[in-house]
Amino acid sequence: MGSISAKSEVDVLIVGAGPAGLMMATWMSHCGINARIVDKRGTKIFNGQADGLQCRTLEIFDSFGFGHRAWDESNHMLEICLWNPDANGIIQRSDRIPDTIPGISRFQQVVLHQGRIERFFLDSIESKSGMRVERGVLPTKLEFDESSAEDPNAYPITVTLRHLSEEEATPKQSATSANGAALSDGLYRSNMTPDDTNELIMQAELNKKANNEEIVKAKYMLGADGAHSWVRNQLGFKLEGESTDYIWGVLDIIPITDFPDIRMRCAIHSANSGSVMVIPRENKLVRLYIQLTTTEKGAGTKFDRSKITPEDILQAAQRIMAPYKIAYRYCDWWTAYQIGQRVGTQFSARERIFLAGDAVHTHSPKAGQGMNVSMQDAYNLGWKVASVVKGISDRSVLKTYQSERRRIAQDLIDFDHKFSRLFSGRPAKDVMDEEGISMEGFKEAFEKGNMFASGIAVNYGASVIVAKKGDAAEQGDGSDVAMKKKALQINSNQSLATNVKLGMRMPSFKVLNQSDARPSHFQELLKSNGRWRVIIFPGDISIPQQADRLANLGNILAAPDSFLRRYTPSEARYDSVFELLAVHAAPRQKTTIFDFPEAFRPYDVRDGWDYWKIFVDDQSYHEGHGQIYQNYGIDRQQGCAVILRPDQYVSYVGPMDDHEAIDKFFSAFMIPQRSSHPNGAVSVPNGILKNVTENSSSGMEKQAVRKDERESAGLLVA
Amino acid sequence: MGSISAKSEVDVLIVGAGPAGLMMATWMSHCGINARIVDKRGTKIFNGQADGLQCRTLEIFDSFGFGHRAWDESNHMLEICLWNPDANGIIQRSDRIPDTIPGISRFQQVVLHQGRIERFFLDSIESKSGMRVERGVLPTKLEFDESSAEDPNAYPITVTLRHLSEEEATPKQSATSANGAALSDGLYRSNMTPDDTNELIMQAELNKKANNEEIVKAKYMLGADGAHSWVRNQLGFKLEGESTDYIWGVLDIIPITDFPDIRMRCAIHSANSGSVMVIPRENKLVRLYIQLTTTEKGAGTKFDRSKITPEDILQAAQRIMAPYKIAYRYCDWWTAYQIGQRVGTQFSARERIFLAGDAVHTHSPKAGQGMNVSMQDAYNLGWKVASVVKGISDRSVLKTYQSERRRIAQDLIDFDHKFSRLFSGRPAKDVMDEEGISMEGFKEAFEKGNMFASGIAVNYGASVIVAKKGDAAEQGDGSDVAMKKKALQINSNQSLATNVKLGMRMPSFKVLNQSDARPSHFQELLKSNGRWRVIIFPGDISIPQQADRLANLGNILAAPDSFLRRYTPSEARYDSVFELLAVHAAPRQKTTIFDFPEAFRPYDVRDGWDYWKIFVDDQSYHEGHGQIYQNYGIDRQQGCAVILRPDQYVSYVGPMDDHEAIDKFFSAFMIPQRSSHPNGAVSVPNGILKNVTENSSSGMEKQAVRKDERESAGLLVA
Repeated sequence: MGSISAKSEVDVLIVGAGPAGLMMATWMSHCGINARIVDKRGTKIFNGQADGLQCRTLEIFDSFGFGHRAWDESNHMLEICLWNPDANGIIQRSDRIPDTIPGISRFQQVVLHQGRIERFFLDSIESKSGMRVERGVLPTKLEFDESSAEDPNAYPITVTLRHLSEEEATPKQSATSANGAALSDGLYRSNMTPDDTNELIMQAELNKKANNEEIVKAKYMLGADGAHSWVRNQLGFKLEGESTDYIWGVLDIIPITDFPDIRMRCAIHSANSGSVMVIPRENKLVRLYIQLTTTEKGAGTKFDRSKITPEDILQAAQRIMAPYKIAYRYCDWWTAYQIGQRVGTQFSARERIFLAGDAVHTHSPKAGQGMNVSMQDAYNLGWKVASVVKGISDRSVLKTYQSERRRIAQDLIDFDHKFSRLFSGRPAKDVMDEEGISMEGFKEAFEKGNMFASGIAVNYGASVIVAKKGDAAEQGDGSDVAMKKKALQINSNQSLATNVKLGMRMPSFKVLNQSDARPSHFQELLKSNGRWRVIIFPGDISIPQQADRLANLGNILAAPDSFLRRYTPSEARYDSVFELLAVHAAPRQKTTIFDFPEAFRPYDVRDGWDYWKIFVDDQSYHEGHGQIYQNYGIDRQQGCAVILRPDQYVSYVGPMDDHEAIDKFFSAFMIPQRSSHPNGAVSVPNGILKNVTENSSSGMEKQAVRKDERESAGLLVA
Repeated sequence: MGSISAKSEVDVLIVGAGPAGLMMATWMSHCGINARIVDKRGTKIFNGQADGLQCRTLEIFDSFGFGHRAWDESNHMLEICLWNPDANGIIQRSDRIPDTIPGISRFQQVVLHQGRIERFFLDSIESKSGMRVERGVLPTKLEFDESSAEDPNAYPITVTLRHLSEEEATPKQSATSANGAALSDGLYRSNMTPDDTNELIMQAELNKKANNEEIVKAKYMLGADGAHSWVRNQLGFKLEGESTDYIWGVLDIIPITDFPDIRMRCAIHSANSGSVMVIPRENKLVRLYIQLTTTEKGAGTKFDRSKITPEDILQAAQRIMAPYKIAYRYCDWWTAYQIGQRVGTQFSARERIFLAGDAVHTHSPKAGQGMNVSMQDAYNLGWKVASVVKGISDRSVLKTYQSERRRIAQDLIDFDHKFSRLFSGRPAKDVMDEEGISMEGFKEAFEKGNMFASGIAVNYGASVIVAKKGDAAEQGDGSDVAMKKKALQINSNQSLATNVKLGMRMPSFKVLNQSDARPSHFQELLKSNGRWRVIIFPGDISIPQQADRLANLGNILAAPDSFLRRYTPSEARYDSVFELLAVHAAPRQKTTIFDFPEAFRPYDVRDGWDYWKIFVDDQSYHEGHGQIYQNYGIDRQQGCAVILRPDQYVSYVGPMDDHEAIDKFFSAFMIPQRSSHPNGAVSVPNGILKNVTENSSSGMEKQAVRKDERESAGLLVA
C-alpha cells in the first residue's frame, strides 16, 4: 500500500509530538537545528490527560518565552488541605500546607490541560523555525548502523515513514485515554481555542501525502512515543519494575458540592472507603483522583477497565467524601487506570537514538510528575544534541543524558511507589493500628514530596559538564561520565557561592540592569538558546582591588586566544556560544557600563555598545532589593565566577578571575573553531568617532544603511 | 464615482482607527454592542508615532486583558536623569528621580510604538466580537437629526461612507508623519510582526467594495479622526488655544554614543544650544526629542518643515550633548513639529456625536500624554454609550463625558504649556539670571508633572455617577451634570475608606480568593465588561456584629425588589449589570464561602456555586500581605461599601449595609427592567440535593447534558 516517494536527510528526527517530543523540537528550533517531528496521531489533543506543571517546568517554559502563557491560563494551586477521619470516622480538615514550598522558585505549581501546553510549544517552534509537526506519520522501519555511531558526519539512522490517511490517523477516542468517553461535538469545540484553527488546516495539507512512504536518514533520533514506544521496541530495550497498583478513577468535572475545600488541592482519606485527591483546574473544572479498590492487587493481575463507568467513579467519590455531597452536570473527561512503576534499562543506543518520557518511565499520574519529568528529559537532552550537531561540543556530553535522567527516573519511581501506597492505604485508627497509615507520616511524606515534586531538587552528578567532586558513576545512574582528560580536571569551590549549588539549577533573585535600572529575575536572563553562560560576580568594584581584578580579567577574555574566541565560529555573533554576564555589587548610581572592560559590553558597528550584559545588586524603585549576593552566598569583597550550562544547571563555581580553570573546563569537551579573524566583538581603541565610520568586520547581519543615515553618521567626522 | 450600494443601521459608528477609536471599539466588543469602525487609511501603522504608556493606560489595557502584552514587549523606564551645565558650561548629571512615583500603581510608565498597541486592540476586539476595522473607508457626508436626539430608539445620524481603492487608501509616508521619511521595504518589513499578516489579507477583502458608497444610519457616533477631524469640521466645532511653540525634531535611532545614560530617560539642558529629551525604547531604539530653535516664535508664525532634515536634527543633538558623541547607523523614523496647545469647545453634539483624542485636544508630543489622554477619553465614553444603547442607563450619564474629559484636556494643555516652556528655556546661569530657567524649579516641575503624567491623578467631579460633595459644574468643565432628582441625592462618607477617593480610580493592593487562597491585585478583578461593581468590605466577620450585618445585607440583596434584580434584565446572567464582590478581614483559614450569604456566591445549576466573588485580606504564601484594609483606610471593625463605575472610578463610599443609599444611587440613572421571574441567581433553600435535579430557570446558557452525566447526577437523589 503506497509507494516510496522520497529519500531525504535530517540532522534530528523526533518520533512523537507529546510534551517530550515537542520539548525536543522546541530546543531544535531555538538552536537552529535541521530537525523533523512526526506523530502518528492526526491531531493534537484538546482536553483531558496530564495537567500539573511543576515550578521547574514553568521556569523552563519561561526560558523559551512562554512561561507567562502557562502562568496566565492555568489554575494556581496554593494550599493543600489534608482531610482525615475524626474519632467518629467522619472526615474533617486536619491540616493545611502550602502546595509549593515558599521561596524555592519564582513560580508555583499550577494546573493546565495538556492541549494548551502543546499549543504553547507549537507556537514557540513556529516563532523560531519553519518546523511543523507532521501528523498522521507513522515510522514503520528502523535501521541503525552502529559502526558509524562515532563518526560526526555520518547519518547512521535510516527510518521509513508512512503517511497515513485521515481515517488511519484519527484514533478512536479510546486510544487517547484507555477508557475515555467519546466526546460530543459540542464539548470538543468548547475545548478548542481560536489558535488551534491553523493546526486543522495544516492537517489537511499533510494528508496530500497520504498513503505514501518515505525514507529519512538521520544523524540523531529521539523516541518520545509513549509507554508503548515503537522506537524502544525496535531497539529491543525493556522497562523494568512493577506492573500493578491499586485501581484509581479520574473525573474532570465542574463540581456541584458543599465540600468547602473543592478549590484547594486536597488529600482526603476516608475511614474505610478509600481516598480522593482533589485537583482544582482552569475553567471551573476540578479533577478528582478517586480510589476504586481498597485492597492491593497481586502482581500481574489486570483489571477490566471496560467495566468501569463514570457513575462507578462518582459513587466511590461520594462514599469517600460523605457526609459532604458531590455531583456534576458537566464532565469534561474521565478515565481509570492501574499502572505500576517501571523504568527503562537504557536511555539510548550508542548516544544516537535516545528515548525520553513515558517511553522510559511510567508511574501513577497522581504524583503530578509524569509530564513534567518527560519534558525535563527532553530539556536535558536537546541542547546537548544541538551542540554536537553544530560542531560546538564533542560527543562526550551526550553520555550525560542517561547518567543524569535515568537517575531522576529511578528517584521518581521510588517516590511514586512510596507515595501511592501511603495514599491508597487505610488511615490508622490509633498508634496501635499497625496496618493503617499514620496520618502524621502521610503529612511528612507529603511535605518532603513537595520539594521533590517541584522539580527544583534535581541535582546532577559529576561529569565532564559538572565540575563537582566525587564519583561520577555513583552520583548518576552508574554510567561512566567522568572527565577522561585528567589534565583538564578542575575543582569548583562551592564556598565562594554557597547557594549556587553545583549540579542544581541556578536559583533566581532580582538584579537591575546597570544601564537602565530595570529589575529582572536573574533567571529571565538565561534564555534557552543553546548558549553557555560565564557569569562574573566581581563584587563591589568601587574597591580598587576588585576593579583591578576585573580589568585584568577583561584583557584576558578579550585576547585572541581566549576560550571565548577559540570556541566561537568566526562568522558567528560574539555571544552565540558563550554569553559573558556580570553582576556587580557597587552602588548602581556611582557606576556606568564604562567602568567595565569591553568584553562585558561588546561593540557592534550598527548597534553600538551592548547594554544588556552588566547587572547590579541594588535597590529598585518598585520591586525591592534582590540581595542576590547575599542570597547566592557570595562575598561582596571577593566575588566569584559561575559557569552555567545552556539548561541553567551549575557547572562550576570558582574565583572571579581564574580564567585558566574556566578555559580548561570548556577545553575538555568543546571543539576549536577556525578563526581567521577576531569574531564578533569589535575592539574600539580610539573612541567612537573612528568606529562610526569604520567598516569593521562584525559578526552581525549587515544592514542596509540609508543614504541620509550614512550622511548623518558622516557629519560626525566632518 | 461609484454607486450607493447599501443602506444599513448600526448602534455605534466609530470614525478613525487610531488609539482613541480602537479603545471605543474595544469597549463595544467587550460589551456586545453592534458597532462599526472605519478608517480612511489602508493599513494600520507599523512604527514611529506616539510611544509612552502611562501607568493608568496599562491598568486599562489590563482590564481588557492585554496589559501583559504591552508590559512584556515595551521598554520600561525606571529613572529620569537630569543633565545641566556646570560652572564651565559643560553638561553633567545633576540629579536622578524615579520615572514613575513608587507606589502609585502596579505598573510603571513604559514605551512601545503605536503599531503594537493598535495590534493589541485589534486582537482584543477580535476575541470578543466579529467587528473588524474597515480600512480604506472615508465618510463623505454627515446628516444629524437633532430633533430626535432624545429618542432612545432613534437613529438620528446618517453618514455616507465611500470605500476607497487601494491606491486612494495608501497614504504617502508623509501623511502619517508630517515630515516622516519614506521607509525602505526592508525597514518596513522589519517592523511587521507575524500577527499583522491577517491584517493585510483582510485589507484585500475590503477592497472588493472599492469605489462603492453606502449609507449608514447610527444611534451614536464617535469622531476619533485626529487633529484634522472631519467629524469635528462637519459639526462646525473649533479648537481654541495657541498654535505655535518652539520647533522640535524627533529621531528614533539605535544610538552609537558614549553618553552614559542613553538607556535612561534624560532631560538634558545645554548652556546655550537648547535641550534634548532621551526616551529609551524597545528593540535597542532610543527616541531623541531635540530642540531645533532656542527662541520662541511669535504667535502665528509657521516654520517650513520641509526644510528640516534628519542631519539637521542630529547636528542639533550633537551640539546639545557635547562633549559626548552621538551618531547612528540605523534610523527607524523621524519627524519635526511645531504644535501649540489647543482644546475643543464642545466634546459632543447633543450627546449623540462625540469627539475624542486629537480631534479635541492637541499639544506637544514630548509630555508623553497625547495618546494616553486620547485613549482615556474613549475609555471614559465607551461604557456610558454601551449602557445607554443596551437600555441599562438613561441618557443622563452621557453628559458626564464632556464634563469629565474636557476638564482633563484643559488640565493637560495647561501642564503642557508650562512644561514645554520650562523644557525649552535656557538654564539660568545663577540666581540673578532672571531670563533663564531655574534647574531646581525644573526638577520640581518634573516631579509634580510625573504624578500628572501617570494618569493616576485624574479626579472626576460630582455628577449623577459620582456621589461627591460640591458643585458639579465647578468640579468639571462647567457643564451641568449635577443630580437632577434631589430625592435620590445621596452622600458618600469618605472617612470610611480614606484612600478610596471619590472620583478617582480604585487603587490596587493584593487580596486572596477565599476559596483557593490565590492572590491577585484587586484591580485584576475589575475587568472592563460594562459591569458596575458593588464591593462590600464587611470587615472581620468573626466579630458577631459584623457577621449579623452581613447576613442582613445578604437577605436584602437577595430579595426580588433589590436593585440587583430591578435593573438586571430577566434573561441576563446574575452578574451582567452588577457584580457584587466581598473582601473580608477575618482569618482566611477560619472562614469558608459558606459563611457568606448566597448573594455573594450565586448558584448556577450547571456550575454550582460561584467561587470568584469573595476575597480576604490575609497573608499569602508567596506574595506577601496586601493589607488592603489598611491601605484603603478601612476599619476592620466597621467595614464599608464602595460603588465602582465600569471604568473603575469610585462613585460612592458609605456604610457596609446602607443598601438604601446604594439603591438610590442606581435609581437616579438606571432603567428598570421587566422581570417576570427572579433573574440569574437561583436560590438553594434545601441544600444541593434538590438543585441538582431541579430544572430551575437560570440565566446561564443551557448546556447539553450527556446521558451518563444525567445518570450520575440522578444517582445522587436515588
